[in-house]
Amino acid sequence: MPRTPQVRPATPEDAADVARLLRDFNDEFETPTLPIKALTRRCEQLIDGGEMTVLLAGDPPEGLAVLRFRPAIHSEDLDAYLEELYVVPVRRGQGIGGALMAEAMALARERGAGRMDINVDEEDVDARRFYERLGFRNHDPDGDPNERMFFCEREL
Amino acid sequence: MPRTPQVRPATPEDAADVARLLRDFNDEFETPTLPIKALTRRCEQLIDGGEMTVLLAGDPPEGLAVLRFRPAIHSEDLDAYLEELYVVPVRRGQGIGGALMAEAMALARERGAGRMDINVDEEDVDARRFYERLGFRNHDPDGDPNERMFFCEREL
Repeated sequence: MPRTPQVRPATPEDAADVARLLRDFNDEFETPTLPIKALTRRCEQLIDGGEMTVLLAGDPPEGLAVLRFRPAIHSEDLDAYLEELYVVPVRRGQGIGGALMAEAMALARERGAGRMDINVDEEDVDARRFYERLGFRNHDPDGDPNERMFFCEREL
Repeated sequence: MPRTPQVRPATPEDAADVARLLRDFNDEFETPTLPIKALTRRCEQLIDGGEMTVLLAGDPPEGLAVLRFRPAIHSEDLDAYLEELYVVPVRRGQGIGGALMAEAMALARERGAGRMDINVDEEDVDARRFYERLGFRNHDPDGDPNERMFFCEREL
């Protein structure tokens, strides 16, 4: 059984690997993204400017987690948002996602985050179970567990 | 019938009004927040630093919208997140929420946002209908309309 690869924060120099993984992720789910050159440049800028924090697993990287941070309104903490979590198909089910999440939560706590948000599709039952095992809830912790929280969006 | 009040962006000087409205909002939904003095200071800092954009309706303010912006990964746009939308109970059903949302979407477009996200509770049927009328969807626009997108969170 392959060992769980090491997880490390990405630097701007990792932008090409980050862009490659994100492009593969979006291709798999048929979600539009930028052309690969522009996506690489975008990743480089966002990592360099501290606008996104990326964790990479493996060498060469076989998975990544993308975090965004913003100062919370109702506490002095940061809020962390896990925007992307991806593992290449051939390496799934080997603990890489769990290793990325453990590092992501540790890093978020270290930075001063008091909570972490994610969005997940109803049909993506495996992902929902994965996040539930990690302590994520899609209902208000003080409310009715059957009343879920929905994520909604629109283009502008 | 009362006229729909004017909507304007808040400045750091509006922090006390912003904090009062947010405190009332959280009290109504029994959600914890900071003590009012600390919340006022927090709002002042976040507005001043451009970390949050607040729209206020009425004079004195009777409703607010709170927006957060971040550079998107998969486009050159910004992503906008509507974190809070509140109207004082006695003024509900008079178009204030709609006026705030119209301004919020116009301002987000002006800033360069390509999309806007919100979270809404399943049980909050009025809010869900309100956002649906405004074009928000809680399913993937390219996917099955019965497969919803969930918002999940955990404390760290």
